[in-house]
Amino acid sequence: MPPSPISPRDLAFLLYEVFDTESLTARPRFADYNREAFDAAIDTARAIAASHFAPHNRKNDLEEPRVENGVVVTIPEVKAAVRALADAGFIAATHDAEVGGMQLPHTVATAALVHFDAANVGTASYALLTTGAANLIATFGNVDQQHRFLRPMLEGRFLGTMALSEPEAGSSLADIRTRAAPAADGTYHLSGTKMWISGGDHELSENIVHLVLAKINGAPDGVRGISLFIVPKFLVGDDGTVGARNGVTLAGLIHKMGWRGTTSTVLNFGEQAPCVGYLVGEPHKGLACMFQMMNEARVSVGRAAAAMGCAAYRYSLDYARTRRQGRLPGEKDPTRPPVPIIEHPDVRRMLLHQKAVAEGALALTIGCARLMDEQETAPDPAVRAQAALLLDVLTPIAKAWPGAACQESIGNAMQVLGGYGYAREYPIEQYYRDNRLNPIHEGTNGVQALDLLGRKVRQDGGAAFDALVLQMQRAIAEAGTTAGVSRMAAGLRAAVDRMVDTTRVLVRAADDMEPARALANASAYLDLVSATVIAWLWLRQATVASRALMSATGEARALAPARAAPDDAFYLGKLQAARYWFAWELPKTVAQGELLRRLDATTFEMEQDWF
Amino acid sequence: MPPSPISPRDLAFLLYEVFDTESLTARPRFADYNREAFDAAIDTARAIAASHFAPHNRKNDLEEPRVENGVVVTIPEVKAAVRALADAGFIAATHDAEVGGMQLPHTVATAALVHFDAANVGTASYALLTTGAANLIATFGNVDQQHRFLRPMLEGRFLGTMALSEPEAGSSLADIRTRAAPAADGTYHLSGTKMWISGGDHELSENIVHLVLAKINGAPDGVRGISLFIVPKFLVGDDGTVGARNGVTLAGLIHKMGWRGTTSTVLNFGEQAPCVGYLVGEPHKGLACMFQMMNEARVSVGRAAAAMGCAAYRYSLDYARTRRQGRLPGEKDPTRPPVPIIEHPDVRRMLLHQKAVAEGALALTIGCARLMDEQETAPDPAVRAQAALLLDVLTPIAKAWPGAACQESIGNAMQVLGGYGYAREYPIEQYYRDNRLNPIHEGTNGVQALDLLGRKVRQDGGAAFDALVLQMQRAIAEAGTTAGVSRMAAGLRAAVDRMVDTTRVLVRAADDMEPARALANASAYLDLVSATVIAWLWLRQATVASRALMSATGEARALAPARAAPDDAFYLGKLQAARYWFAWELPKTVAQGELLRRLDATTFEMEQDWF
Repeated sequence: MPPSPISPRDLAFLLYEVFDTESLTARPRFADYNREAFDAAIDTARAIAASHFAPHNRKNDLEEPRVENGVVVTIPEVKAAVRALADAGFIAATHDAEVGGMQLPHTVATAALVHFDAANVGTASYALLTTGAANLIATFGNVDQQHRFLRPMLEGRFLGTMALSEPEAGSSLADIRTRAAPAADGTYHLSGTKMWISGGDHELSENIVHLVLAKINGAPDGVRGISLFIVPKFLVGDDGTVGARNGVTLAGLIHKMGWRGTTSTVLNFGEQAPCVGYLVGEPHKGLACMFQMMNEARVSVGRAAAAMGCAAYRYSLDYARTRRQGRLPGEKDPTRPPVPIIEHPDVRRMLLHQKAVAEGALALTIGCARLMDEQETAPDPAVRAQAALLLDVLTPIAKAWPGAACQESIGNAMQVLGGYGYAREYPIEQYYRDNRLNPIHEGTNGVQALDLLGRKVRQDGGAAFDALVLQMQRAIAEAGTTAGVSRMAAGLRAAVDRMVDTTRVLVRAADDMEPARALANASAYLDLVSATVIAWLWLRQATVASRALMSATGEARALAPARAAPDDAFYLGKLQAARYWFAWELPKTVAQGELLRRLDATTFEMEQDWF
Repeated sequence: MPPSPISPRDLAFLLYEVFDTESLTARPRFADYNREAFDAAIDTARAIAASHFAPHNRKNDLEEPRVENGVVVTIPEVKAAVRALADAGFIAATHDAEVGGMQLPHTVATAALVHFDAANVGTASYALLTTGAANLIATFGNVDQQHRFLRPMLEGRFLGTMALSEPEAGSSLADIRTRAAPAADGTYHLSGTKMWISGGDHELSENIVHLVLAKINGAPDGVRGISLFIVPKFLVGDDGTVGARNGVTLAGLIHKMGWRGTTSTVLNFGEQAPCVGYLVGEPHKGLACMFQMMNEARVSVGRAAAAMGCAAYRYSLDYARTRRQGRLPGEKDPTRPPVPIIEHPDVRRMLLHQKAVAEGALALTIGCARLMDEQETAPDPAVRAQAALLLDVLTPIAKAWPGAACQESIGNAMQVLGGYGYAREYPIEQYYRDNRLNPIHEGTNGVQALDLLGRKVRQDGGAAFDALVLQMQRAIAEAGTTAGVSRMAAGLRAAVDRMVDTTRVLVRAADDMEPARALANASAYLDLVSATVIAWLWLRQATVASRALMSATGEARALAPARAAPDDAFYLGKLQAARYWFAWELPKTVAQGELLRRLDATTFEMEQDWF
């Protein structure tokens, strides 16, 4: 039997030992919960992921959705899985109880949903995109829109999409051409083409609710003229009944390298029949609404990457422990049996890299979810504001870094398996193909880098960046007094100084020179900040682990040595993964920092005709 | 029309301006050639690659070989393409004219064959694996074996394989279980199973010639008991006629993530019928023979990676010049037309990274081929010996680095295309899947790292390593006197010092501690040496480019300014790619060197139960 793709012990560590999730039960919104109830929700997700999602992950890749007679055909397991996820309440995991939600903290919901991503991201996406769309309607939709669309979405009877990109407008939303003409009844008629719309068509649900960006006739140019519309596949009556077909039609499916289970569609609006859309919020203010969904979606991209990174790590770890091959250097006797490949140091290197990356990505994702909970439910408004700032600056990192880093770590999983890793008879190559979408969708990683350097670290006089530095300094202070991690604390202190100095130079440059030149090395800056953020999260984990070990040494181990031992190994592993990050990965920021601070112009000055 | 996957100008630069290929025509073996004849051979390869290979590259991926009624079915284009390649003489590109070869230098042959890899590696492999097998028979086969097998292989009537790996023995050849029992007629009867055998079965040729490693009954344990056998699919009569079926049978196909056009097979020997094998060379000395083929194959892996890296680079470059999207930061007017994405600095960064990596890999591959020519045909025996040493130490780098680095560069090509890069409707994702095999096959990159640090830099008292350092110092001296590259020369000098210091520490450690610990960070060492080698090759290219520019400034440009201009851009691009390598990539070796010299034990000391 393959190992659980997500370690329950690691999740419990992050939730209860690092991010203090249990304290949330003291807040009114979560008063009906206790730790056991949190764990029960997570266990339910794990069980459904194992029973309904994992078994058809490969089949959904091999038999990807196809169009037959104008209808999208998916394997039947997909519908059953989405149904099971929805019936267990996970589309509405964080929504209010009064609209049928589970009212879970984001922290716990993330720890639950990560199991679906790890088991079968292609199928899970139909449901999890719906959550994002439902959140948007819950926040910005009017009473009528909520009545017609929100509850069926939370129940999974309607599924949702976000329809932003167009054939000629992917990263550049200013250039969208989809138009919305006001109709006499207060609705709008949309016309245009959207592309890369995940879950844009299928037969999995009674209805599909598209959240569409379009420009009302006469709107201002650029992003200030974008409005947001609800466009259902089928019109919905006042009583909630699903009625006639709306004029949004499937123009074609795009065939992706991975993540094949989720349809990627080209949709036409208003081509054959009028396409009715309902304006959400005010005219021309659609992008601000959509950004709420995009920011959530960006953190979800990081969660999916972390999930796949963890799954590949744990599969390759299991393989390395059982597969025997070769002997250690220095063993001269060829009649000795081959060793499990985990005994080869280079295999341990590839496993430890994976552990540091995948568990680091999971910590980042859950840490962001924890900030969402602070932002929404912390009793102190100042704490809420601080959390919002931190989430702002961390979002581009939480989106970009897990996808990029887990691609490397899944590559190491493949390398551990050798030829088997490259064979479709084994699961690793699918993770490798599936995760490769993460650096592309929801704003490419290059777009995230520009968001970080061009906007997030500069906004409000650098308040968000300062908040991040403050958190790091707190972690350093706490670790500095903890045995076994003080050297890492010193390492992070130097890295934070480097990040601060580098940021200062780049922000000043942005005032002094043309913006394109000042932002030219934004990707290297994103790398530097990301490595520092992950070091911070590993230092926090190492501090907790070190204290737990000391406490175990002093107390639990003396009283019950047999019981303490397995957790010792867990904590020692956390410490070693943190050491790996500080010894192998964080030092890369030294060269990045030098490059950035000297405002290296090598790539900027490359002329087009020199290529 | 898509751009040519390999730049003719870049090839000419490497061959004639950097590696002095024309001087080879002064050697007796190549006396019938001149530059025009070299170029004609390369142009022929380019034309056949474009007409017979590129058109079915995608089809061969979508409709990969399958088994029907026990027979491997491939799309018909494959056979026609292999036929065209063989008929033009490219299986025998470097072989003696007297056995039907073209007797080309390796340098020129490599520049020709890279076109087949770039156009369609899945189809090309059938032919190019045959070259390796044929070389082995040409060197070690007896007269009878050459008579029966060599010429039909060089003509492409028989195709060849190398059959080393088994289900339980991939990286560890000491553990192969395939046995060979002596028969009364001087042949052997083989029994066992081989796995991952590329081109191991198909209907593309009259016969398939497997070169098989097996152990003769009673042989010593381990690698000292391995013998090499020719095992044809069909027995061949004394007159060369193809006769009865031999007892080697297809047990199944493995389905790979990429490189799908080449069958990857499991083969059974002697399961249903006796399997006749012919011993090559002496009993128990098979591995030494096979290493000749493996070393050639390893350089060929680098060539294939360079080819795919170049192809993806040039496709994404073409895309970036024509695709319009967004505006530069600072442009406030949304009514201005979108710019070609090459104007975005981060896109130029991704293109320049690709150029530095892909053209760096091509330089490494052609540089190794040039060393093969020196090794075989240099008039001075001392020069031959020196070339052999250099080739020895460069082979693990030439195998490992291009595959790993081009995976990153092809990832950047994908990122330049965004969603289109991830879609199977575009060619990039196939390069991404195809190239990912290169870090795995022909000895994983981890095995190459052990070969470099555990063997190559230590053998003969470090003679090969010293030879490499000497070459680098020569390049530094030459560049130090050339305007525009002296700073890069200083950068390489520091990097060479770092590489030498690091090597000294590691070699000393290997004498002082257990071998597994001393070799634990071999992969980081391979990275450091590789980055230094590529810096050396970029410095050489930059030196040539700088001199050409100065000469153009002083002479050609004054006389014929219009004619000189396009080449100016080419040389300026070479200089900028070199600067990129020195500014962005080489500095990574600083942190690697520190890690290595302190003999960091983080990964080595990670206990199995801590994961």
